[in-house]
Formats: sequence, structure tokens, C-alpha cells
Amino acid sequence: MNEKKKISRRTLLGGAAATAAIAVQHAFGKWVQRPAVISQPADPTKVQGPPPGALGTRSPFEQLRKTTSETSSRTPLQSLYGAITPSDLHFERHHGGVPAIDPEKHELLIHGMVDKPMVFTLRDLKRFPSFSRICFLECSGNFRGNRPTLTPQDICGLTSQSEWTGVLLSTLLRETGLRPKASWFLAEGGDAAVMTRSIPLKKGLEDGLIAYAQNGEALRPQHGYPFRLFLPGWEGNTSVKWLRRLELSDQPFMTREETSKYTEGIKDGKIRQFSFDMDARSIITFPAYPQVVEKGWIEIRGLAWSGRGKIIQVEISTDAGKSWYTARLQEPVLDKAHTAFRYLWYWNGENTEIMSRVTDETGYLQPTMRQLVEARGSSMGGYHLNPITAWVIKKDGTVLFRPEERK
Amino acid sequence: MNEKKKISRRTLLGGAAATAAIAVQHAFGKWVQRPAVISQPADPTKVQGPPPGALGTRSPFEQLRKTTSETSSRTPLQSLYGAITPSDLHFERHHGGVPAIDPEKHELLIHGMVDKPMVFTLRDLKRFPSFSRICFLECSGNFRGNRPTLTPQDICGLTSQSEWTGVLLSTLLRETGLRPKASWFLAEGGDAAVMTRSIPLKKGLEDGLIAYAQNGEALRPQHGYPFRLFLPGWEGNTSVKWLRRLELSDQPFMTREETSKYTEGIKDGKIRQFSFDMDARSIITFPAYPQVVEKGWIEIRGLAWSGRGKIIQVEISTDAGKSWYTARLQEPVLDKAHTAFRYLWYWNGENTEIMSRVTDETGYLQPTMRQLVEARGSSMGGYHLNPITAWVIKKDGTVLFRPEERK
Repeated sequence: MNEKKKISRRTLLGGAAATAAIAVQHAFGKWVQRPAVISQPADPTKVQGPPPGALGTRSPFEQLRKTTSETSSRTPLQSLYGAITPSDLHFERHHGGVPAIDPEKHELLIHGMVDKPMVFTLRDLKRFPSFSRICFLECSGNFRGNRPTLTPQDICGLTSQSEWTGVLLSTLLRETGLRPKASWFLAEGGDAAVMTRSIPLKKGLEDGLIAYAQNGEALRPQHGYPFRLFLPGWEGNTSVKWLRRLELSDQPFMTREETSKYTEGIKDGKIRQFSFDMDARSIITFPAYPQVVEKGWIEIRGLAWSGRGKIIQVEISTDAGKSWYTARLQEPVLDKAHTAFRYLWYWNGENTEIMSRVTDETGYLQPTMRQLVEARGSSMGGYHLNPITAWVIKKDGTVLFRPEERK
Repeated sequence: MNEKKKISRRTLLGGAAATAAIAVQHAFGKWVQRPAVISQPADPTKVQGPPPGALGTRSPFEQLRKTTSETSSRTPLQSLYGAITPSDLHFERHHGGVPAIDPEKHELLIHGMVDKPMVFTLRDLKRFPSFSRICFLECSGNFRGNRPTLTPQDICGLTSQSEWTGVLLSTLLRETGLRPKASWFLAEGGDAAVMTRSIPLKKGLEDGLIAYAQNGEALRPQHGYPFRLFLPGWEGNTSVKWLRRLELSDQPFMTREETSKYTEGIKDGKIRQFSFDMDARSIITFPAYPQVVEKGWIEIRGLAWSGRGKIIQVEISTDAGKSWYTARLQEPVLDKAHTAFRYLWYWNGENTEIMSRVTDETGYLQPTMRQLVEARGSSMGGYHLNPITAWVIKKDGTVLFRPEERK
């Protein structure tokens, strides 16, 4: 075929000229007889397409959607690639719906145990030194596991990842000053629920961000426009959206969200309160229900993350947990960030079960549901459940979630 | 104010209770008298907001748009934050408009100097080992400089950044095999222009990607759906969209796009051909026309990138190029990626000129327009122009682009 270079492009694409049919192999499929060159231009090449527009659009063949309930919407993890979540597919969890906020009428008040109470408009916040980081955000109630026909979106679609930009809270607190006893602050949102959480000041000073942008653009209303608190690696509800007030204090405020909610049962009738960190977790997003696979090479793909730092390893089992192999991690592996993992596997067509488990830089290894039950007791609630997810692969190629008893 | 913790939240937010007005300082503005607590809930807190939807939306206060011409659209760099470009704001440059492609009817043929010609469907491509990277993409014609009222979008809005996911070209070429003499390949698109470029095989094997996803989701029609070639750091037109054919050869194909176009004049009546690498460039996106600034602290912000690797330094001058200071770079600094830079500057309110210049890891320093003219001669064309961009700041706070003679 090396004489091809002597054929002009016009001849090559002109249609009638190409007569020799040669064997062309489909990558995954049977051999087919096919012309060596594309002798008939496909339809799109015959039609001048529309010019560039002010905003791009999705292909009608790729209609992505979140699943929704009255208070939340879930990211379709099984339909996404890489580590960034498109902003319109970022999960949502609201306590009073999405408020409509005019940024000119919205301010952040910082008061309480500060030297100098101050208010900041969006315009003010943008004038301070800014900071960006790529980071996941996950709801502490991010688990479902009650039936085999669950997708990754159903099981843990309350996690998403963005590049967040804003001003570090520590920068603002240098302006207000801090009284010596200040050790907690209340974060209050401007939504109909007036969402409030108490946050240890230490976390706020460490890496708390007042975020006003997400994936390059202004925050969207669903994610806290005009600005929100963002606490990397902590349960999502603490990253209070539509932030309007921070009150410094020397103790937590014991709001509804940390007394009646967002605590979880552990052993002996006790509960855990202020359980902020999101534990390390991973999930295989391919293959997963409702996908169907074929015998042969399969790249097992998924996401792993930890609220406590970088992940250092993801292991894959393709024999129901008997043996484990190390997956490849997509660089760059970032702190408190969804990290894509991949593992090439030859499926022999027999019934089996595949699963992933992650280890983070603190040495924490993702537990099984059985280990979670053992540690927390049968009264454990629905928060901070990060068990290993197992997918059953059946001979016919169907993939099903494997539910586990939580008693 | 430390007795605040003893006041119940209900009292605090209840309205009439709060009477004491204390001095609260606006971050950038005059002192105002303001209640110490938010005594009247703002409107949004009185109204239950709409529930989560299947797709998020932008705030009506943040209507971002590309500027468009018949063949291109430009990213509003001055309105964005961080390093990721939202996919619907990614610049476009088409040669035959945007084709409407059914992914079931689109295939990639690899033939020519290969052992085994093969065709790949989108489904096939997704079965191979995948790879993701965050990378800029820039049009080689990305420069305008003819008048003072140009925004960063006008000057160089033909560059954008995404997380790209696909299969490495080297992976596919291991399947087809390569004949010993193969050293170039033709990449052909399925648009109305049947866009073609000749690419050295070395580049394809090094880091060429057949990309099918962008910023987490399937490619959009404007960016090559169902898949495109992506050549990191090379001029955008070589990353052929709607890719349908790769033909391996032992020499370039000398298509229209590399003979009559995409070459640039240098000295003595000569032209440069196959000038693939995008040279290092930076631009200050704030402050920039049409923004207006106030005397005082200003965080100068912008983007820097190089098609030849990582950037190692961005320097800022606030005195028309007499002295230069090092800007902060936003981590992680990635290979061939837009990198956000920031430099805190106190503007004394006098007329001045600010500019940025980048150095990449090859030691290349971004040139001035004068240096470009000296190197290439007065007949140089409109491609690969990456001069230092200077913004004039006037006493009244207005910011204007400073055009430079290209003769």
C-alpha cells in the first residue's frame, strides 16, 4: 500500500477510482470486506455544517442526565470519563431548594470572636488573592445498596469533582482578626433552610475556601451562587452554599444539622457527632450495571478518592476478593481528589465478581460492609458508608450490583 | 460579642430581637452602620427554592458567551477563573462548519504503511486502555492586536483547556502494526472540508491521543464528536476533529492546509512549513480591557502555557517592562497546560503599563512583538504570534490594550 502516497488526494477521495477491496479488520469483531479507501464520502462531508455558536451544545446522541429526587440529584458516574465532572452534572443536595440570589444584594458577614466584624460582597471577595484546586465534593449520605439493579449513579452518585476557585478563608480572617479564644465558627447559608453548620476553626484556617467559581466559570445557583464555603475532603453539607454569615465562637453551636442530623450510630447506642472527614472510597464504573460486556479484554475503570489526602493505591479483584492486583492511577494524583484508575483484565466468560479497594496516604484501607457493621454495630445510620462495591458478572455478560446485609 | 453563643439560633435569626447596631467594615469601601446580626432574612430565605434538576444551569447574572465569526468562536478568558474551560465555552475553529455525525455510522480507518489495515468504531475505541490528561488547545492564528479596545478574548481567545480522555494512538498502532518505512501519517476529518494534515509519526507515537471525551463527558459536536485526534501542544488544526482516517506513509502528503495555509513567512522571502509547536505565551486577564480598576491592592491574574512542556516561570512588570517580578503559579503545574498565575500589586493610581512574560522548561522566553518582527521579518504572516501583551492603565482606572507595529 505504500504507493498510496503517489495518488493525489482528489483521486483518493473521488469515489469511483477506488476499486480494490482489501481485508480490513474490525478491532473487536469479525473480519469484513471493505474498500481500502473511503470511496463514498459519508453524508456529513457533503453538507456544510452550521458555524460556531456563542455556546457549545451536546450531541443528541449523548444526552446525559442526573437522576433526581425532591432534595437531591445524582451524577451519572457510569457515563463519564476522567476526573472532572461537568458542572451541570454535579450532584445536588439541598435543604430548602435553590435560592435565586442577586449577587448585588448578597453579602458575607464575618463576626463574633473577631477583632473587626466585616462584610464582603462578591466583588470584594474577587479582589483578594485567589486560589484554585481540583477537589471532590461528596454528600455524607452517599450510599444505596438495596437491590442488584443499581448503577454507580444510584449507589454513590452524590460525589462529583470540580476545579474550585475562590479566596482562602484564612485570607479573610487575617482581615477581621481573631480573638484568642476563637476555636469554632458557624457557617450559615442564605437559602430557605438557612442551613447552618459548626466548623472547627482549625479546618477553616488550614484549607477552607470561599469559592466563587467552579470549573472555570462563576458558581452555578445549584452550587451556591454567588459564593459558598468549600471544605476540602469534608462531608458536603459542611461546605455551606449561598454563604452569608460566619460567626466565630469558642464552641460549636449545636445546630439541627449536627444534633438531629448528620451524626451516625456506632456501637452501644452511641452516636458519632462532627464526623467531618469523608473516608477513602472507590467504585468501579465500568463494567457496572446496566452495561453488558463481552468475553475478552476489558479495561476495568473507576474512581477512587479520600477526604484525608491523596490515594496511594487501588487494588482490583476479579475473583470475588480472593486475589488482588494493583490498578494504574491516572496522573496527576491530587490531594482529596477523584482519581481515575484502570486495570486491564481478560474475562474468560465465566461467572465471577469484580471489586475495587483503595488505600489512602494515611494507610486507611477501604472496608467491606461487614467490617463497617462490625465496627459501628447494627444501629449504624446511613451516613459515611464507604464499603467495597462488588459487581457480579454473569455468563451472558450482564453486570449486577451485589447487595450486602447491613444487620 | 462572645456572649452570642448563648443566644439561640431562633432568636438570632428571628428578626425583631436584634437591636444593637455595631460598626462593620466593608472590605473595600467605607465603614457602614449595620446590624450585628442579620435581623431581616433576605428574600431568598423566605422562599422555598426549586428542587434539583436533571441538569444544572447558569445564574441569569452570569451569562457567558463566546464571540463568533463565520469560522471561529473565542473563549471569554477575562470572565473565567482557574485553568479549566467549560466545554460550551471552548473556542471553535472550523473549515466546513460542524458536521452532524451519528456515532453508529462513523468509523476510523487506519491504513497505508501498516501491517494490518483496521477500522475502529467509537465502541471499539472505548474498549482499549484509556488515558486522560489536562491540556490546552490553541489555534495557530491566535492573535489580534490592531486597536486599544481589545479584550483578552479578542487578542487570544482561540485557546482553551480541557481534561481530554481517549486512547493513545500508539495503542492503536500496536494493533495495526507499522511498516519499517512509516514516518508520517495523514489525519483526515469527516467534516464538509474533509480537513487533512500530515503529522510526523514520531509525534503520534509520543503522545497522540484519539480523544472521545472532554471535561468528563463525551466530546461535543463542535469539538469533534464522536472522536478527534489530539496532539498535545501542537497547533490546533493538527488535532483533526471528526477523525475518520489515518494513512501511514513515508513522507508528508502536502495537503492544502500545509501548503497554501498554516505556514508563516520568515526572513528573505522564505516560509516556515510544518511549524507545529505552539510557543510559550502568557496573558494578563485581569486587569484587562474593558475592566476598570481602583487605586490600591490589585491581584494581577492571567494564564501562561507552552506547547513544549511545563512553564517554569511567569514574570510581571508593572512599570512598562523596566523591572520584572516573579508571579505565583497555581499548582499543579502540568505539561502543556494553561497555568494560572497571580501577582499582588499595589497600584498607586498613576498612569502605567503592566505586562507578563513566561519562560518554559526548554528555557524559551516569551518574546516582544519587536523581537518577533526582527526574527521573522516584515513579511511574517498571522500564525504563531505570541508576543508579550501590555495593558495600559490610566489614572481614571481604565485599562487599554497597547497595540504594536508589526512592520
